[in-house]
Amino acid sequence: MNLSKFDFVCEKAREAMLLQTVADTLEWDERTGMPLGGGEYRARQVSYLRGKIHDLRTDAAYGEALKQLDQDMVSDAPSSTTEQIATIRGLLRNWKRDARLPSELVEQISTATVVGQQRWDAARKANDFSMFRDALDEVVRLKREAGQRIAEGTDRSVYEALLDEYEPDARVESLNRMFRDLRKPLVELIEEVRGATKQPDRSLLTRHYPIPLQQSFSHRVAEAIGFDFNRGRLDETSHPFCTTLGPSDCRILSRYDEAWLPAGLFAAMHEAGHGMYEQGLRTDWFGLPPGSYCSLGIHESQSRLWENQVGRGHAFWQWLFDDTKAHFAPVLDDVKREDLHFAMNQIEPSLIRVEADEATYNLHIIIRFDLEQQLIDGSLAIDDLPAAWNDRYESDLGIRPQSDAQGVLQDVHWSAGLIGYFPTYTIGNLASAQLYDAAALDIGDLELEISRGNFQPLLEWLGKHVHSRGQCESGDDIVKNATGKPLEATHLINYLRTKLRRLYGTEAND
Amino acid sequence: MNLSKFDFVCEKAREAMLLQTVADTLEWDERTGMPLGGGEYRARQVSYLRGKIHDLRTDAAYGEALKQLDQDMVSDAPSSTTEQIATIRGLLRNWKRDARLPSELVEQISTATVVGQQRWDAARKANDFSMFRDALDEVVRLKREAGQRIAEGTDRSVYEALLDEYEPDARVESLNRMFRDLRKPLVELIEEVRGATKQPDRSLLTRHYPIPLQQSFSHRVAEAIGFDFNRGRLDETSHPFCTTLGPSDCRILSRYDEAWLPAGLFAAMHEAGHGMYEQGLRTDWFGLPPGSYCSLGIHESQSRLWENQVGRGHAFWQWLFDDTKAHFAPVLDDVKREDLHFAMNQIEPSLIRVEADEATYNLHIIIRFDLEQQLIDGSLAIDDLPAAWNDRYESDLGIRPQSDAQGVLQDVHWSAGLIGYFPTYTIGNLASAQLYDAAALDIGDLELEISRGNFQPLLEWLGKHVHSRGQCESGDDIVKNATGKPLEATHLINYLRTKLRRLYGTEAND
Repeated sequence: MNLSKFDFVCEKAREAMLLQTVADTLEWDERTGMPLGGGEYRARQVSYLRGKIHDLRTDAAYGEALKQLDQDMVSDAPSSTTEQIATIRGLLRNWKRDARLPSELVEQISTATVVGQQRWDAARKANDFSMFRDALDEVVRLKREAGQRIAEGTDRSVYEALLDEYEPDARVESLNRMFRDLRKPLVELIEEVRGATKQPDRSLLTRHYPIPLQQSFSHRVAEAIGFDFNRGRLDETSHPFCTTLGPSDCRILSRYDEAWLPAGLFAAMHEAGHGMYEQGLRTDWFGLPPGSYCSLGIHESQSRLWENQVGRGHAFWQWLFDDTKAHFAPVLDDVKREDLHFAMNQIEPSLIRVEADEATYNLHIIIRFDLEQQLIDGSLAIDDLPAAWNDRYESDLGIRPQSDAQGVLQDVHWSAGLIGYFPTYTIGNLASAQLYDAAALDIGDLELEISRGNFQPLLEWLGKHVHSRGQCESGDDIVKNATGKPLEATHLINYLRTKLRRLYGTEAND
Repeated sequence: MNLSKFDFVCEKAREAMLLQTVADTLEWDERTGMPLGGGEYRARQVSYLRGKIHDLRTDAAYGEALKQLDQDMVSDAPSSTTEQIATIRGLLRNWKRDARLPSELVEQISTATVVGQQRWDAARKANDFSMFRDALDEVVRLKREAGQRIAEGTDRSVYEALLDEYEPDARVESLNRMFRDLRKPLVELIEEVRGATKQPDRSLLTRHYPIPLQQSFSHRVAEAIGFDFNRGRLDETSHPFCTTLGPSDCRILSRYDEAWLPAGLFAAMHEAGHGMYEQGLRTDWFGLPPGSYCSLGIHESQSRLWENQVGRGHAFWQWLFDDTKAHFAPVLDDVKREDLHFAMNQIEPSLIRVEADEATYNLHIIIRFDLEQQLIDGSLAIDDLPAAWNDRYESDLGIRPQSDAQGVLQDVHWSAGLIGYFPTYTIGNLASAQLYDAAALDIGDLELEISRGNFQPLLEWLGKHVHSRGQCESGDDIVKNATGKPLEATHLINYLRTKLRRLYGTEAND
């Protein structure tokens, strides 16, 4: 290992990360409180910084150094540390990817996705896909070109080349297999609980929950489960997200609806889950692969685990119910714990992914995953997309969107060039169930601890098996090493069956 | 005018401003809500950006282009616009200044002032000047060296070279003359009102004013006087300030004390005054001298005008009193307007500049102005500073600090390298009174408009005569052109005499 060369590439990568976190701070500000008038100049600032970041990341000397370090490593592997290997492999992977995309194409994609998001927003408001059609066509065309360039000379498909950016090394075939394993039992389970006599009372959650009370409540819950407010903040925005502005500065954002309690609380828990992953990364390797999140699927597994396995669980509400009642008094005075918990686990097919329950959620993803592959390989024409979308909702979820706004215009992702991103949500759901089961086995009395408000054992387990690993293990290996087997659909299915059958009183089917 | 060369320097200057506003956004975030843990990395981000800004601003090709443009202009002046001339002169002035300071010295000053502020903070908390002594000595030594380099070959003193950064072209002799004109009548006036039988009831302002109510109140007042919330925000911090993050993004910050109403309200009005100046600058010249504030003295004239001439005025409380009563009900139910207004204008020598009234404030400044000159020219040794400070407070304000914390450790400025900065506060006070008088003459019924809550005529007048001028006029010229004569002490003295004698019932002296 040529250490001065290794230091050189690390320094460059850290410099790019420094600028990245600067740009992300500007975007955080833009999405929390920037005055309206600030938008135009802010866009210029961010675009300037992104240009500098791209220059650093595609620098030829940097790439050469990485390639040489990689070659040296082959002969010299035993003397390299896991962190050094992960660093070189991770940075080289990114460099190769970036270097395959000419600046012109990167700029075209950047412009097309800015336009795309604006047109999508306008089209959705006007409920008219035709306003978005050309912009989407352009995004798909450019992303296809990017995918082709990245896939060239490899054994990956064009779609896989795009997917790889979010979920390194993921393959369509294995995703298809997992999704197939998931789909059939999921559809059966959904039908089963939808047919149950016992149904939850949704109206418990649509009472008046004043927003300031929800804010303080979410703050308390995020803190209780382990989000470190000395190294992070919780704010409000229109589309919840999590962003990391430094090794000890993680910002999470939620949104609140005074007539829908779960929105704010579960968004806060979801983002806190992302945030605790970021806070659990190794600060000494900040900006480098050993201190960076592994994949979007693994990231999502952390947010979904805290939101669902913990937050929608029986034990959690044993702990939190009395507090909730007191906090929002007198709104919940007449409500029983089981009824509130049941309402929070209502299963109901809908047209809106971001509001979907745990079971139907994955059906939304599978539809998008299938359709975006067809868009990229050209087997589905843009003009046929709205109908294809509606057909799939009808066949998969049993409800047909009555408008573009409720249909093909639901998600911002494609307009923003995020093609190959959707499957990471379901990977996250599968991994959250599998990791939670393994944690429960290791910890033994996990549910008991949760019912007492002690989340430390779970957080420590995740820290040890997931967070601290950074990119020193692949996503597949993290799951394998933590749970003893590769990612599979069984855990999510079993988890949903057990919980839902108990709540809906259909245990007899067990 | 070589237009391509002109465009080149403008582009460089705008690029530096872009990075400057990025760094300022990070600092705004640091001072409003950054989590504690973010500090270390944030310092690295800001220092990286400051380095890039310094590189751009001291770039040799940029300096050469400016020098050539400046030479061409001499022969070619009639064909240049006012904006072009101001741009070249302003940028060249800054370039020359920056180019005279070797990077090493700039870095030393940067380090010394970071250490200085930390030591100052610790020393103040421990009430022990000796903990700060060495750090201050180092800052003074480095700033003296910087001043010597800037002054070399000019007819400026070393102190004037430092002063020039904040108040271009200001001279000690003329400041001394103005301060002398101000001092004697001011001291007499203070004695007069301190001896009056009628005294205000300070306790009206120390009742319980809940902070959320103060926040919404300050927001309303800032909006009412003309701060544009589409192009700015008002937030909370520990030391109020105003910062501009883009041509249409100005952030002002106040702080609130639930047992001291004036703190939050007048800080908000003060910062809104700064903010309205920034919002009144020409956005088409953002980042260049025609779209930049003229001097710190002129900046301060705007904040003090809104805080004092307007905010502590009779007419303003005719407008605001009933609203205030309703907003904070029932806290002020038993209070009369005249009594509240009188309390807000209490004159009382104190040891704390930032809480000083309008009259004694300037005595605090004169003490600092005198002492910092002696520190720079070496006639006052660091070890003699605490005693010299206390002696001056005794002779000038009639009260002697009983500790370092109440004495020489009062202000952060010197620790931060801000030497030559203090006089701009009094320049601002003098200019605010003089500009207000001129505005009142031009507008005619200014006080009547204010008593009706109509601040538009005043803001428009200031926009026309001050804000929109940017650096196309010097500070002196702005005052001269707006008021018909150079800056002088008379207006402030007359304003204070008239107001205070009326309130304190000493009109007979008139």
